[in-house]
Amino acid sequence: MTRYALTLEFDGGPFMGLQRQDHGPSVQQAVEDAVQEFSGQQVRMQSAGRTDAGVHACGMVSHIDLETHLSLFRMREAINACLRPHPIAVTQIEMKPDDWHARFDCTARSYLYKICNRRAPLTFDRGKAWQIPQELDAAAMHDAAQLLTGLHDFTTFRSVNCQSQSPVKTLDLLDVRRNDEWIYVKAEARSFLHHQVRSMVGCLAYVGMGRWDNARISAALEAKDRQALGLNAPPHGLYFVKASYPETEHQSQESTQ
Amino acid sequence: MTRYALTLEFDGGPFMGLQRQDHGPSVQQAVEDAVQEFSGQQVRMQSAGRTDAGVHACGMVSHIDLETHLSLFRMREAINACLRPHPIAVTQIEMKPDDWHARFDCTARSYLYKICNRRAPLTFDRGKAWQIPQELDAAAMHDAAQLLTGLHDFTTFRSVNCQSQSPVKTLDLLDVRRNDEWIYVKAEARSFLHHQVRSMVGCLAYVGMGRWDNARISAALEAKDRQALGLNAPPHGLYFVKASYPETEHQSQESTQ
Repeated sequence: MTRYALTLEFDGGPFMGLQRQDHGPSVQQAVEDAVQEFSGQQVRMQSAGRTDAGVHACGMVSHIDLETHLSLFRMREAINACLRPHPIAVTQIEMKPDDWHARFDCTARSYLYKICNRRAPLTFDRGKAWQIPQELDAAAMHDAAQLLTGLHDFTTFRSVNCQSQSPVKTLDLLDVRRNDEWIYVKAEARSFLHHQVRSMVGCLAYVGMGRWDNARISAALEAKDRQALGLNAPPHGLYFVKASYPETEHQSQESTQ
Repeated sequence: MTRYALTLEFDGGPFMGLQRQDHGPSVQQAVEDAVQEFSGQQVRMQSAGRTDAGVHACGMVSHIDLETHLSLFRMREAINACLRPHPIAVTQIEMKPDDWHARFDCTARSYLYKICNRRAPLTFDRGKAWQIPQELDAAAMHDAAQLLTGLHDFTTFRSVNCQSQSPVKTLDLLDVRRNDEWIYVKAEARSFLHHQVRSMVGCLAYVGMGRWDNARISAALEAKDRQALGLNAPPHGLYFVKASYPETEHQSQESTQ
């Protein structure tokens, strides 16, 4: 039995989330079913992060334990073939020590939130970004975002369903950049609370619209109260882009070739 | 009656092409129907280019003649509202002189062809790019592309259904660039033959795979014979990105706000 780390890319649109659910299709179930189809083995996948219904990933890292004589290359081809027609792809496979864990060994997680800031409806990017028609001030959003970085009690930005033991987290990066009609929000931390990125992006959008100022962002953070939240951004703009590990880094760009 | 130039963005996937067809849905029909829905007027749209089934656009320019008291902003909102749920958006509207023509006044057309060069299947970009699993040499493709720029008889790269009076065209730019697993081919000319961009990209892909060399590209061009074509690239990787006009330029980035 060998432990394998899989880097996953998926369109979250058709799924109830990454983790297995009783009430609908999940990415985990699709991958576990694909592995069983080619290997005959029932596996249980563990992942660096849990993503909500509709949230996408381009660099999720998960692990499975499997007995196989296939090369990494053939194994990736086999899983991807069995994953069709799901919009899920294994972009990379690596062998890992038996005690390596995709979730517990992960030391940093990166998310990207995509906002399309224009009035015209989305065509190609429908379901892949949050469209905001009123003009946003991205510089003001970036400025306000800096109030949220560092060590804070993020209770305001935490879902009522969050299972984290503590609401105190260190946010390493929250960066807002405009590129033409697109606004990209990058967030990096060791770990995030449930809905934290979407909750922060929702409040930053209020800042971009001029409805909130920096004082209001600080007050929301200080309130340590979900009621102080401005807005939870929709899931379909959010991408899990990278999971980092002590020795190596898993990125969506690498590949098993 | 006033002439309006519309800049259109559309996902070509669900359509038989830009121009009105007897045998299926077209972008032209969807836009004409949307204009009729809000204005009650039957219009006939003329466009800078004709795109095939499955081909996309982010900066197509078209014109219509309409009697309306709406501002350009309201008119764009109205057309976009009536276009739902089609994946078509009017990103910009401008008033034009009565003798201005989206097709005949257009002095340059730009296309972008997107190749995703990886083994893992596409997720987000399914139907939006040509996936080629074997590794391509983008530098060799760019080098070969330079043999096709300039004034040539492009009969080899012309569909049998092409209605152009002459196969002799000047190709101003054919640029191939790699960005990680993506390869972008940019093509610019005053006008193109039917299937010209896809035919050139197909042959360049052969060069990238090492199946064709520069001599073979030159021989194909010299042959002036459709039989000498290597491969016609699929439509879903192709984007009409820009139509240029003497006074001004219409780009997908601009907007009527």
